[in-house]
Amino acid sequence: MIFSSDNTAATSPEILEALTRAASGQALPYGADDHSAAVRRRFADLFECEVDVLFVSTGTAANALSLATLTPPWGSVLCHRDSHINNDECGAPEFYTAGAKLVPLGGTDAKIDPAELRTAVRHKAGDVHSVEPSVVSITQATETGAVYTPDEIRELGRITKDAGLRLHMDGARFAGAVASLGATPADLTWRAGVDLLSFGATKNGTMTADAIVVFDRSLTSQLAFRNKRAGQLTAKMRFQAAQLDAYLTDGLWLRNAAHANTMAARLQDGLKAIPGVELLGAADANILFARLPQQVIDGLHADGFVFYHDRWGQGVVRLVTSFATTTEEIDALLEAAARHAA
Amino acid sequence: MIFSSDNTAATSPEILEALTRAASGQALPYGADDHSAAVRRRFADLFECEVDVLFVSTGTAANALSLATLTPPWGSVLCHRDSHINNDECGAPEFYTAGAKLVPLGGTDAKIDPAELRTAVRHKAGDVHSVEPSVVSITQATETGAVYTPDEIRELGRITKDAGLRLHMDGARFAGAVASLGATPADLTWRAGVDLLSFGATKNGTMTADAIVVFDRSLTSQLAFRNKRAGQLTAKMRFQAAQLDAYLTDGLWLRNAAHANTMAARLQDGLKAIPGVELLGAADANILFARLPQQVIDGLHADGFVFYHDRWGQGVVRLVTSFATTTEEIDALLEAAARHAA
Amino acid sequence: MIFSSDNTAATSPEILEALTRAASGQALPYGADDHSAAVRRRFADLFECEVDVLFVSTGTAANALSLATLTPPWGSVLCHRDSHINNDECGAPEFYTAGAKLVPLGGTDAKIDPAELRTAVRHKAGDVHSVEPSVVSITQATETGAVYTPDEIRELGRITKDAGLRLHMDGARFAGAVASLGATPADLTWRAGVDLLSFGATKNGTMTADAIVVFDRSLTSQLAFRNKRAGQLTAKMRFQAAQLDAYLTDGLWLRNAAHANTMAARLQDGLKAIPGVELLGAADANILFARLPQQVIDGLHADGFVFYHDRWGQGVVRLVTSFATTTEEIDALLEAAARHAA
Amino acid sequence: MIFSSDNTAATSPEILEALTRAASGQALPYGADDHSAAVRRRFADLFECEVDVLFVSTGTAANALSLATLTPPWGSVLCHRDSHINNDECGAPEFYTAGAKLVPLGGTDAKIDPAELRTAVRHKAGDVHSVEPSVVSITQATETGAVYTPDEIRELGRITKDAGLRLHMDGARFAGAVASLGATPADLTWRAGVDLLSFGATKNGTMTADAIVVFDRSLTSQLAFRNKRAGQLTAKMRFQAAQLDAYLTDGLWLRNAAHANTMAARLQDGLKAIPGVELLGAADANILFARLPQQVIDGLHADGFVFYHDRWGQGVVRLVTSFATTTEEIDALLEAAARHAA
Repeated sequence: MIFSSDNTAATSPEILEALTRAASGQALPYGADDHSAAVRRRFADLFECEVDVLFVSTGTAANALSLATLTPPWGSVLCHRDSHINNDECGAPEFYTAGAKLVPLGGTDAKIDPAELRTAVRHKAGDVHSVEPSVVSITQATETGAVYTPDEIRELGRITKDAGLRLHMDGARFAGAVASLGATPADLTWRAGVDLLSFGATKNGTMTADAIVVFDRSLTSQLAFRNKRAGQLTAKMRFQAAQLDAYLTDGLWLRNAAHANTMAARLQDGLKAIPGVELLGAADANILFARLPQQVIDGLHADGFVFYHDRWGQGVVRLVTSFATTTEEIDALLEAAARHAA
Repeated sequence: MIFSSDNTAATSPEILEALTRAASGQALPYGADDHSAAVRRRFADLFECEVDVLFVSTGTAANALSLATLTPPWGSVLCHRDSHINNDECGAPEFYTAGAKLVPLGGTDAKIDPAELRTAVRHKAGDVHSVEPSVVSITQATETGAVYTPDEIRELGRITKDAGLRLHMDGARFAGAVASLGATPADLTWRAGVDLLSFGATKNGTMTADAIVVFDRSLTSQLAFRNKRAGQLTAKMRFQAAQLDAYLTDGLWLRNAAHANTMAARLQDGLKAIPGVELLGAADANILFARLPQQVIDGLHADGFVFYHDRWGQGVVRLVTSFATTTEEIDALLEAAARHAA
Repeated sequence: MIFSSDNTAATSPEILEALTRAASGQALPYGADDHSAAVRRRFADLFECEVDVLFVSTGTAANALSLATLTPPWGSVLCHRDSHINNDECGAPEFYTAGAKLVPLGGTDAKIDPAELRTAVRHKAGDVHSVEPSVVSITQATETGAVYTPDEIRELGRITKDAGLRLHMDGARFAGAVASLGATPADLTWRAGVDLLSFGATKNGTMTADAIVVFDRSLTSQLAFRNKRAGQLTAKMRFQAAQLDAYLTDGLWLRNAAHANTMAARLQDGLKAIPGVELLGAADANILFARLPQQVIDGLHADGFVFYHDRWGQGVVRLVTSFATTTEEIDALLEAAARHAA
Repeated sequence: MIFSSDNTAATSPEILEALTRAASGQALPYGADDHSAAVRRRFADLFECEVDVLFVSTGTAANALSLATLTPPWGSVLCHRDSHINNDECGAPEFYTAGAKLVPLGGTDAKIDPAELRTAVRHKAGDVHSVEPSVVSITQATETGAVYTPDEIRELGRITKDAGLRLHMDGARFAGAVASLGATPADLTWRAGVDLLSFGATKNGTMTADAIVVFDRSLTSQLAFRNKRAGQLTAKMRFQAAQLDAYLTDGLWLRNAAHANTMAARLQDGLKAIPGVELLGAADANILFARLPQQVIDGLHADGFVFYHDRWGQGVVRLVTSFATTTEEIDALLEAAARHAA
């Protein structure tokens, strides 16, 4: 009954089966195995274009490696002030980029405001006294559970590219956004200008396998060196590849994400009906924020429900569902909340 | 029939079973799970002292994080000229340390010569025009398959500590050294002055789980920040922990290593009997170097045997066994070599 | 008739004379000369305590070196959002610190608000997912020409030290602040908790000589290595030392600063009397901000007066005086402004 | 009577006069002044091509900035094992490059051996497990006082460029090499493939002004950002420019260097005649190495002569002359040496 994050779920049975199948026999290391080749083909199919793929052990590594490839050390990374790269990675982007500066921007639902971006991409450009605007990073779905529409991404992409900057997408919850929007992965990424995508999978079903999807393949060589140098290049790469292979097979990734979204929607609907509960912001994917009466928070904690609260204001809680959340768990939470609200 | 490296093996059945058991139910992230706690206790038992443990995805990350914790950016890392950190990590130590300098030393069998070390630890110490000797890094077993005896480590440790430097051990093949020597892990590490150990497991049975063992626990807080910042802190840590838990249970790690060593010894004995073959250097663990007649190298390749050659001199090959190597594979290689030598 | 910055002035005659005297004969390099020793004694007298001193070629180097010494790479630097380190150094602090993060705080007149600081020094302390609050940097006088009173510095110092952080002062215009306040250098720095001071001199009379004054002398060894490694350690150090020696002799530094302040006050008084002119914020030292009617701005530019405008809002200008500014120049500007305002 | 280094000399009278002339009136900062523009034109004339020029405060900064511009962080810098960047800069190249690796090569008289270079430029190129050969750095004149001939530089340049690498020249004593060879500056640099030159002036007559000369001007923008970020961009740039302007006027730089060389030749000739003295290596410019009898070394020290000894072997001394060395000083040294040798 943990609703604090989608990283508390285990893994999909299909992932474990794939790993089991991969766990015998010898295989060439560092991506020269069959599984790794298969995954690259699956990504190409998924995104309807040739792509390169690098496996990484965390979303933080995916983001930091991508940003380091897209900005010089004296550059700035334009991002939302509530973004994971700005708040939750202990300066990994600054470490990997050799000291680039994250410039936080505003916007509702943790989505970058286009007007702010329009100013920021030109701010002191070419002035050696200031960091140079170099890359824009957007998060899909956002940290507050909202999603950018294809039109919104295209607009931000246009602003970015017109000013000569690069575009990165932190897709820690990319699957949830695709499931929510019903748009194609291509429309949400490279067709809108995305150069590099941090493709999150761990939160949505794999054990320990995330990836960087490279749309601008002129960046691949540099990424490969950075990846090795970061200690992210694994010898037994087949074990990451097997997970992602299964994840992308027969739509598992989208089924998982759609399920998590459905659970969040069920939770949202149920909370609406509880007196004293206020829903906060868009909840397009699998994260929702709400303000609960104090006795409801206390009561849920006493019942053993685990979730974050009071980080974002008095009485504000964050609830996250996952591919593994059951309707029984949702209903148990709702029943308990209703009981404590009474 | 791949003898190029021990990283081409799959995984031990016990590891896969442990992973399977860990793959259900919710668990708290970032090491707050039960598996992670259990592994820390196993390491403490193994090393006969309180230790802290960080999980990493590669040996390169283990080494680079350790070195960054033990040297300032203006420091030097004294290591053997044939060491992995010096040659095979694409500058990961330089990246993580923010630009420390690796100073290569000589010595037979890829073991640091004590006399050279004695000079190097004092070289221009305290002189701001030069990098400052800060940490010594030794590899156990070495890149050429030799092992340091406890006495040898103690001597290097004493030289290191008398000069006020820190001691790191790259234990990518630590299990093989322990199996070869029959010494206790404690005698080979902290009792001889080792501050941080890169504890390799992937080459000897796990899928994707290595660790840093922290003997000087005053370093743990710094390591934890560096680990997160490097993108090495995984959310679903139970999947690394479960692997290492099984690895350290009922002596699996030592059995695996002893088997690899036995296979290498069998290979060595067999090669000795083949005319024209010259064994090179000590082969105490699971790596051996030999000079083969050209027609033997060509013949083995034609038969489908995979191994590195000619990197270390004309006709020199490296052969590596693993926990998964079978006597049939060894005998097939020997039979083929004898045939081509005839 | 340049009022854009105090860095457009030449040098004090006393500085040039000292340089001339130093420009003959041999001298030992890297600070082993007599001038360098003399300067250290002068600084000790000035600050009423033993200090160490490093010479640097720019204020940016002084700041970046100081910050790198006071924060680990995963730390954060708490500073005012309008500070020079945050806006005008092209990421030098991020470069030197190997990727620390600057956290901008608010407060009037570019002075850090104590309440904001009180929250920021504790923000996510000890949480590896976030950068660690490590050092507070205050600017004296501030970028808008205000000065912190001794009480204000003491309060910020107390908040900083109670939370276990370090305190840095960017004193690019330290002389102006001392002249304005009539307080002792000691009260404005180490007695209030300052660990390292970027002691600016170039804007106030030297040619190319700034310094870092080290109050916590346990930091000196680290600073010395960082300084060399940064390419800031000059061989012919006597030429920097001679400048600073003269600068600190017979109160030249304070006379120069007092003169610049007097010129700014005269300018301020004159502007007040001009219709349509609005003075903005405190102007305690040699910088003032004012909103001028557009025809005044245009007219002054046409007359050849040089100054920045419109960076801080419509019609807002910044005017800076220096040790070399004359009353004639001030009066010429005022006369012209009054004429264009009519 | 200091012969330990050419950095113990003061400055040329012409330099001081130029500085004095520059020391009045206002001037625009950061290179927008007239002196800075004049210097750029002088460098263009000198090198017979359009160049960009950046002023730096030390040769270490010139080297580190240049190397950072010519190699990615995962690159290697191929240099002589006795080079200043490898031994005497406290890791400044590693700091500025964000962790590139210096690969030391051999060769007589501290000149890179072409055969070694030919191998090194291809070593593991394109292999992500290793650092990538990226830039070659040669020192002219070398640390032992030899000079590369134009043919030698062309050969190294060809090897470098054929392999797709960049070429840097550490010209801390470039003037001495030009004076020694009688070749044109152009032939010794860009015509032979040099991309960036660290143009040393401080050792040969200026006070504190060195420069980077940019032959591949596509690098200038990057260098400008790096320069600011390094804290090397001075506001009162006129004071550096004025020194270099005078240095390049009427051949002062070459006259100074020729004088230093002549003094070294006189010293060399004199030493040859002293029994028991052995000259070591080529002494083409202003540095010479010799092995002296111990009683000569002791006697010279007792007489107050200052020089380094015993760093390079028992009885080996280094003697350095400068633009300011007099024949009286040389003769005094020779007389004393002869006396102690008797």
